[in-house]
Amino acid sequence: MADKYDLLLLLERPYEPVFMERGRKTIFDVPEKFLTERYRMVGNELLERFGQEAGRRISVTDITLPDLHIPMQLPRKAQFTLCIPAHRFMARRLIDIFMAVNTIDELQSVAAYAHDRVNPYLFNYALSVAVLHREDTKGVGLLSFVQSFPNKFIDRQVFRHLREECTIVPEGSRMPIVIPRDYTASELEPEHRLWYFREDFGVNLYHWQRYLVYPLEATERRVVFKERRGELFYYMYEQILARYNVERFCNKLPRVEPLNNLREFIKEGYFPKMEWPPRFDNTKLSDVKRYQDQLILDIGCLQRWMDLIYKAISEGSVIDESVNRIPLDIEVLGNIIESSEASPHRNLYGELHNMGNLFIAYAHDPEHRHLETFGVIGDLSTAMRDPAFYRWHANLQNIFQAYKTRLPPYTTKELHYEGVSLTGVEVAVEDSKTPNVLKTHWQVSDIDLSPGLDFAPRGNIFARFTHLQHTPFTYTINVNNESETQRFGLVRIFLGPKADERGQDIDLKEQRLLMIELDKFAVSLQPGENVIRRRSNESSLTLPIEQTFRERDTKPDSTQKSEYNVCACGWPHHMLIPKGLPDGLRCELFVIISNYDKDGDCNDSAAHCNLREQLFPDNRALGFPFDRLTRLGVEHLRDFLTPNMSLIEVIVQHEDRTDHCC
Amino acid sequence: MADKYDLLLLLERPYEPVFMERGRKTIFDVPEKFLTERYRMVGNELLERFGQEAGRRISVTDITLPDLHIPMQLPRKAQFTLCIPAHRFMARRLIDIFMAVNTIDELQSVAAYAHDRVNPYLFNYALSVAVLHREDTKGVGLLSFVQSFPNKFIDRQVFRHLREECTIVPEGSRMPIVIPRDYTASELEPEHRLWYFREDFGVNLYHWQRYLVYPLEATERRVVFKERRGELFYYMYEQILARYNVERFCNKLPRVEPLNNLREFIKEGYFPKMEWPPRFDNTKLSDVKRYQDQLILDIGCLQRWMDLIYKAISEGSVIDESVNRIPLDIEVLGNIIESSEASPHRNLYGELHNMGNLFIAYAHDPEHRHLETFGVIGDLSTAMRDPAFYRWHANLQNIFQAYKTRLPPYTTKELHYEGVSLTGVEVAVEDSKTPNVLKTHWQVSDIDLSPGLDFAPRGNIFARFTHLQHTPFTYTINVNNESETQRFGLVRIFLGPKADERGQDIDLKEQRLLMIELDKFAVSLQPGENVIRRRSNESSLTLPIEQTFRERDTKPDSTQKSEYNVCACGWPHHMLIPKGLPDGLRCELFVIISNYDKDGDCNDSAAHCNLREQLFPDNRALGFPFDRLTRLGVEHLRDFLTPNMSLIEVIVQHEDRTDHCC
Repeated sequence: MADKYDLLLLLERPYEPVFMERGRKTIFDVPEKFLTERYRMVGNELLERFGQEAGRRISVTDITLPDLHIPMQLPRKAQFTLCIPAHRFMARRLIDIFMAVNTIDELQSVAAYAHDRVNPYLFNYALSVAVLHREDTKGVGLLSFVQSFPNKFIDRQVFRHLREECTIVPEGSRMPIVIPRDYTASELEPEHRLWYFREDFGVNLYHWQRYLVYPLEATERRVVFKERRGELFYYMYEQILARYNVERFCNKLPRVEPLNNLREFIKEGYFPKMEWPPRFDNTKLSDVKRYQDQLILDIGCLQRWMDLIYKAISEGSVIDESVNRIPLDIEVLGNIIESSEASPHRNLYGELHNMGNLFIAYAHDPEHRHLETFGVIGDLSTAMRDPAFYRWHANLQNIFQAYKTRLPPYTTKELHYEGVSLTGVEVAVEDSKTPNVLKTHWQVSDIDLSPGLDFAPRGNIFARFTHLQHTPFTYTINVNNESETQRFGLVRIFLGPKADERGQDIDLKEQRLLMIELDKFAVSLQPGENVIRRRSNESSLTLPIEQTFRERDTKPDSTQKSEYNVCACGWPHHMLIPKGLPDGLRCELFVIISNYDKDGDCNDSAAHCNLREQLFPDNRALGFPFDRLTRLGVEHLRDFLTPNMSLIEVIVQHEDRTDHCC
Repeated sequence: MADKYDLLLLLERPYEPVFMERGRKTIFDVPEKFLTERYRMVGNELLERFGQEAGRRISVTDITLPDLHIPMQLPRKAQFTLCIPAHRFMARRLIDIFMAVNTIDELQSVAAYAHDRVNPYLFNYALSVAVLHREDTKGVGLLSFVQSFPNKFIDRQVFRHLREECTIVPEGSRMPIVIPRDYTASELEPEHRLWYFREDFGVNLYHWQRYLVYPLEATERRVVFKERRGELFYYMYEQILARYNVERFCNKLPRVEPLNNLREFIKEGYFPKMEWPPRFDNTKLSDVKRYQDQLILDIGCLQRWMDLIYKAISEGSVIDESVNRIPLDIEVLGNIIESSEASPHRNLYGELHNMGNLFIAYAHDPEHRHLETFGVIGDLSTAMRDPAFYRWHANLQNIFQAYKTRLPPYTTKELHYEGVSLTGVEVAVEDSKTPNVLKTHWQVSDIDLSPGLDFAPRGNIFARFTHLQHTPFTYTINVNNESETQRFGLVRIFLGPKADERGQDIDLKEQRLLMIELDKFAVSLQPGENVIRRRSNESSLTLPIEQTFRERDTKPDSTQKSEYNVCACGWPHHMLIPKGLPDGLRCELFVIISNYDKDGDCNDSAAHCNLREQLFPDNRALGFPFDRLTRLGVEHLRDFLTPNMSLIEVIVQHEDRTDHCC
């Protein structure tokens, strides 16, 4: 019987035919009819040659061949993206095929057969969605997407070095190939100061993971229609923008300007140094007419969708496909803007998120005159590299805020946790005597890219890349339980800047949009004084770096967690804290403890995704208590506090040194 | 002792270290100190491993290591171009080193040592120039540049297929990888109709060859200062433009618009589908400030050079570096515009040709903000792919014509060949009964790209590409020698369109700029009637396709020509005839026979280059008799004729079928 973990081998070396060695000298023994026409001609010879060195052979069962004509419409060498409806349609068909088979055995066969026929990126996407959503593949996790498709993460130039090293040097003696620290632009380009954020592996993986866990379309309803999907969409980007804007302050840049005028020149160019085309400085959007993608859309259309959504916000309701009026809430609004099949009326409200990306992604060749593919912002696994991504999302965020600011402010009663008060908060960095100073620096880490190096010699080959890191720290929180019984609390910790881009103290009205959620966890409170210590790396919202770039061939150790954390969609832990400034970025650290019974059950990373229909961890709005405007009279964060909250000043210091990981 | 032909092996697999297998299982046995630092660490192991399979070992003599610090200033992964003065300076140093060593043995050692240290493209250029110019490497020829650097000729996408084929399929069973017929743009883009011209291998090789044969800088004077270098520069581009414009008529496009307004948007975008950046439609030129390349130049400067050159033309003289006035002729003007060390005053008249290319090549990133390299037009081996190349050269051609139109028209006496008259001309295509109809079609040819596939498995791997071709034809020319002794004549044959882009009969004033020179050859004339038959493929101005893409490891066969035709700088023969139209392009074929004694000695391809200081073949101006305005009263070509000329109408028919080569 097939081993479910072997499915991961099909995600390696995406362009290599399925019969070639995978993993550690493993061969998929496929029926000859699985070979494509080119290889059937030389089939026996090949199977013998590649079989010879195999240490392990996986026997692939013959099956009734699936009908792949729809997913095969996308050429193998084309770029695939979820933003294009026609591509999603093909992906949906393949997901359906992978979801519908009854056993791992059959799944292995169908996948092995599809592997050489379908566009490799489309294949990876559909198989990943199936592995994450099928009952019988629970716990399998995924090969890191950086390892399958390093071309979506790494400077094109590096590949020649990787090939050179693994062609010439035998595995034991290979040295990691260094990816330059920042290679996409020079210091003349102010936007480039954010390279470590926009081009971070973890940040881009985080974004891509959302779309694996929340597919936009699938026939099996539970795959798409998930609890709080729309709100999570809103909050994910709200937090990304908050982080991005704070990082901009760390780099002497103002907050990002929303791209709300679709007729203006986009001044920020971006040259990804990858196989995707660049966008020059000062490029204008144009109507998109790409027949090949079945994409005929003018800018006016995008504008009309925006207008209709603003109108719906004013009216407090939307119209669904049956022309019923349904009340607008954050869930509905998120689903409309995203927009997935969960949107109540995709035809009317359109696809603001996806199409906005595409309009920017096609600015260089809107009519397909030059046979160009989309720029990086058109692919959800590379979109966050582009400065224009943040400008477009700042515009979408304005729409969400138009809704949020209409909600009544939380009352002190809603905010307070009766009988529980916070009496002190401190953060302390490891090995430091100065409290409330957080520290960041550079770190280099290595990642094995062998699984993504098609048609290259076997064996590990590491790339060495630089990313932001912070010194681990610990929160110490003093809580007084004024009652006489044990109680439970949900602690939320936020960090936000104390000053704006001009250096002036910031109003809470603006600051609330810059508050970064660092952690959220449940505590039990004994009567009287409680001292809660929580380490930064325990954050339920983040994913450790090892999980982002983990070794392949690791199955969960049965002595540890019984199932690997397959959800794997936390924010990259090494990006938990903004970079700060050499002489310190002044911030405010805010802690609130609220009633745990009310807030529900808490799960790892669950503020970011909710894969397997677990109960949602938090009954309150995501972003609580900063998701709404604050009550009258509250101008600054200090005025906002109820006794279950606390606020301290924190400095984030960046030291320009580079450590080696682990 | 080293074999001079082995030098060609150093032009293969440019990024692979020198100790790896080259050619057919050949290994250069280099002293260990030749290895770069990375490989010295694992040196013995490597040398042993790669040595094992060698069928032949070339022993490389140890030498006093040359000082390479200047050529090593260009990073190995950077792009190299002759247009950038700083790059030329590095190339000059390396050429000097390769020219200065005394023996082939030493040259082999110096080149083997430089191979892994110097930018591979710079290395190829400098070694090629040395091989073409040293006395002891006469007859070696060069590996086709397409084979060394296929990335400069082929769609990026094709490389994955090439790698796949040669990784999986053993050498005997490999199939050619098809390069799509036209892949850089769609039919929406009118300029794309010219793909077969602009992206032709032979056309681009022809252009690159000029700069190998006529280096812009070198310490050894004879390498740069060659007879009629400046005039050849003018005439090469004059003919390229004539051909390009006629091809435009074949595609219902008007003649190319000169780019004489440097402040306007360039409407023609170009996406090369290579590793060079694209230019979007409607991109503007900007001042160039690239400190890394030591290139700080504003558009005003380019404009001033143009103005000064126009002024010099008006005055009929230029100023040299010693502030002497020297008369302006086509030679001086060509050298000024090109401009090489042969320019009389580079500082004053600048570098119009190179810098024009660079301004266009840097339009997407003029200040190096985005760390981008130049576009294809910045590299003389890829420049002809870009539609803007022709617009810039149309502007340069206007300058040349400003000079040429000031010269007195040829008198009938100068044109005539007393006592010799042309009594009939006919062209006949093979196997056709209709005279004076030329035929073109598509052809596919295969080329082995293995020598350019770094870090890929060994053995031939062919790419199959499509190019224009014509059916061979024969000229029959009747000449009457009215004298009673044998005389000699030089025959020139031109082809030009009969109508302009509006379909109206064209004035000779315009037509002369569209006359394509097809052949030039000497004949002996017996008294009385002579019938001259000349086959199209005998043209002295073209190079057969086999020579453009010839097999490697071919040494000249001693039973044939004693020396291989190393000059190899003719126009690609398969592009001899413009494409024509399905229902025929109306043309005029013009033949002139002139006094051979007066015209000098004739050599193959010598209208295109003159490598080894042979006597120049033709004492008349290049382009004669169409290089000047015509005498008063001549409006059409038919009015221009003297008895030693003849004119017939010819139709060029294109059939949309594809033949296989050879």
